Amino acid sequence: MIDSDSNNRPARPHIVIVGAGFGGLACARELGRSDCAVTVVDRRNHNLFQPLLYQVATAALSPADIAEPIRKTLGRYRNIHVVMAEVTGVDAATHALLLNDGERLPYDALVIATGSDYNYFGHDEWRALAPGLKTIHEARLIRQRLLLAFERAERSDDSLERRALLTTVVIGGGPTGVELAGAVRELGHHTIKRDFRSLSVEDHRVLLVEAGNRILTAFPDHLQRYAHDYLQAIGVEIRLNARVEDVDRDGVTVNGETLRAGCVVWGAGVKASPAASWFGIAPGPGGRLPVDDRLRVHGVEDVYAIGDTALALDSKGRPLPALAQVAKQQGEYLGRALKLTFQGREPETFSFRNRGNTAVIGRNAAIFDFGRWTLKGRLAWFLWALVHVYLLINFEKRLLVTIQWISRYVTRQRGARLIDENLSP
Amino acid sequence: MIDSDSNNRPARPHIVIVGAGFGGLACARELGRSDCAVTVVDRRNHNLFQPLLYQVATAALSPADIAEPIRKTLGRYRNIHVVMAEVTGVDAATHALLLNDGERLPYDALVIATGSDYNYFGHDEWRALAPGLKTIHEARLIRQRLLLAFERAERSDDSLERRALLTTVVIGGGPTGVELAGAVRELGHHTIKRDFRSLSVEDHRVLLVEAGNRILTAFPDHLQRYAHDYLQAIGVEIRLNARVEDVDRDGVTVNGETLRAGCVVWGAGVKASPAASWFGIAPGPGGRLPVDDRLRVHGVEDVYAIGDTALALDSKGRPLPALAQVAKQQGEYLGRALKLTFQGREPETFSFRNRGNTAVIGRNAAIFDFGRWTLKGRLAWFLWALVHVYLLINFEKRLLVTIQWISRYVTRQRGARLIDENLSP
Repeated sequence: MIDSDSNNRPARPHIVIVGAGFGGLACARELGRSDCAVTVVDRRNHNLFQPLLYQVATAALSPADIAEPIRKTLGRYRNIHVVMAEVTGVDAATHALLLNDGERLPYDALVIATGSDYNYFGHDEWRALAPGLKTIHEARLIRQRLLLAFERAERSDDSLERRALLTTVVIGGGPTGVELAGAVRELGHHTIKRDFRSLSVEDHRVLLVEAGNRILTAFPDHLQRYAHDYLQAIGVEIRLNARVEDVDRDGVTVNGETLRAGCVVWGAGVKASPAASWFGIAPGPGGRLPVDDRLRVHGVEDVYAIGDTALALDSKGRPLPALAQVAKQQGEYLGRALKLTFQGREPETFSFRNRGNTAVIGRNAAIFDFGRWTLKGRLAWFLWALVHVYLLINFEKRLLVTIQWISRYVTRQRGARLIDENLSP
Repeated sequence: MIDSDSNNRPARPHIVIVGAGFGGLACARELGRSDCAVTVVDRRNHNLFQPLLYQVATAALSPADIAEPIRKTLGRYRNIHVVMAEVTGVDAATHALLLNDGERLPYDALVIATGSDYNYFGHDEWRALAPGLKTIHEARLIRQRLLLAFERAERSDDSLERRALLTTVVIGGGPTGVELAGAVRELGHHTIKRDFRSLSVEDHRVLLVEAGNRILTAFPDHLQRYAHDYLQAIGVEIRLNARVEDVDRDGVTVNGETLRAGCVVWGAGVKASPAASWFGIAPGPGGRLPVDDRLRVHGVEDVYAIGDTALALDSKGRPLPALAQVAKQQGEYLGRALKLTFQGREPETFSFRNRGNTAVIGRNAAIFDFGRWTLKGRLAWFLWALVHVYLLINFEKRLLVTIQWISRYVTRQRGARLIDENLSP
């Protein structure tokens, strides 16, 4: 089914890319219509525009608005083959990727673009109680818990229970945590006011819990302060220096205090996918695969890593952050570099160009950091919306998301407030 | 939480409506801003535009495009209270509805609008293997099975297994079965051709299995023949006089022949919700509650039934069909009738006005039966699309669905081809 096998090495080199996120897709596209045979392996059938996943979790968008089948995205490239499968390991000596159905996929070059996961710091049993925000399933689960909590509160006669159900705890003060906390606050405030006769807006609480002493540490101080003040102004309670000690069915224990909650979301700590274990090499900080300035994994021949799962250093020796734009630039670079490599030419080294870092905090409020200059407030929010619509995968999705955003902006109503039946964690 | 209780009967009569489908919602809306207190009870938080549910199952639309929170739909009426709960029974003697959390909801009038379910004719164990098409969860399940079967077939080396995986069996030749069979055929044909390198369109099969000797029996003969010929022309195999004898993991046994299939969908036989058991009365054919010409349930005081769950007779003594337009007209009528009743006035009797019966068969093909005249083909299809967009619940959904339909018509690509993770049956 693929062009190469180990006995009869073909004229066309075979590049296998594991993971179809921002990095993997960018790499595959760059290799589209090249002289290489490319196989993209992912355990899901769709790629996901993760920056807007929090909007699925808060009932503003539908999953299909921000996800597309990988086959559709790459369908135009005849040299790219898509495989939906789980990777079980790598046989680096014979250059083969091992799949869960026993298939061995031989490669001339292997690109690891398997992304990252949230870090539960040794408490993986918390995952079911406090899902992260990495997959459509998790977004749907969070949406279900948020909406079900309102319904249960409406039917409760116990004011303490009602208040507990209407409390959401978001763990982690990074961009995902901040975006989610702001959106949950807006969802709750408006929905309770309009649709729930027996509930009071005063009972709605959103707590943002951060282990460090600041939120949004990747941004300059004055933007951090702006976000902090904005969140407090819309009623999000921010707990800094707050360590999560336990998560159970009733809520979260933080610094010895138990916070009862109807919904808990995890957005703290990032750890790389466990790809390092496939090669039996020692991973770097956060489980990332150390790579050189051409994104080659140290010590393993013909294996490359990009995106959240790669530990790449900038010119000053600092690790590049786990951001979509880093993954995308690395994917594009690596696609070009591999083409050159298989033509027998030497590619240049990779260097990251910061295109600006952004987070949205609420209606009319976002922050942008372009390095030399920054932006905040309504204009930043408008720019954020423009950029994110532009980055969506095709014209149809751009149009659908724009319409839903305009409708939500005008009516303050969220369109996708569905409680799913039979959803298992 | 509600205006009435049995000790202190209020001035405002309290009407409880169970079920927020076409009938229940129409009744509630008619009673909006009236002098009655209204409580709408549903076990789901959303109402569903069921005529387009087959498009969710075949990856053309997202669930949120055709579903809306009941609270949102009825939010503008201050006299309507919405309760998300399961009904466990009725205490007809004291006029109270019993809910799953032990609450007793007293009523002055009770409207049963609980709809219908598919009839597995005593084989409820087939339900998990061959889901019907009544809920969003089932639509998502069917979508997942269809899409996963393609992925599995792509990875299989066994040509028999590949052919089995690419076979879909639709049971029941009514409108839902026909619409689904046509849509699955179009989805499969186009998707395989464009996105699956190892699969052949020739291996894609759709079988429509009907126990009777014709499909679409509610339509005039020439429209039946048109639909039959159209389906065969696009490659749907129609099996008439075919009795389902068994359903298992591998497929369906029909008239002694085992049809191996990657996806089986049930659309045969309709039975009313089990509301009759709440009253301990003998249900009519199909489990329906017999009602008089004012939609009062025979033998139970102050209880009314509408829609699929009611057995109402037309002027010639024939049962009215289980159709959305019947439910809607009954709901509107009953809302008006209840207002008159509580004003001490006598309402007229209900009579059904046929607004036309329709089914869509495929791209550019639909049928309409208006009684005196009929329509088929491209014009009927266009009219079908217009009518269904118009019937959607609000402007935003109309716009979103229109855009997706235009995009699909032009590109032949389906936008919502997501395989859900962790979906349980």
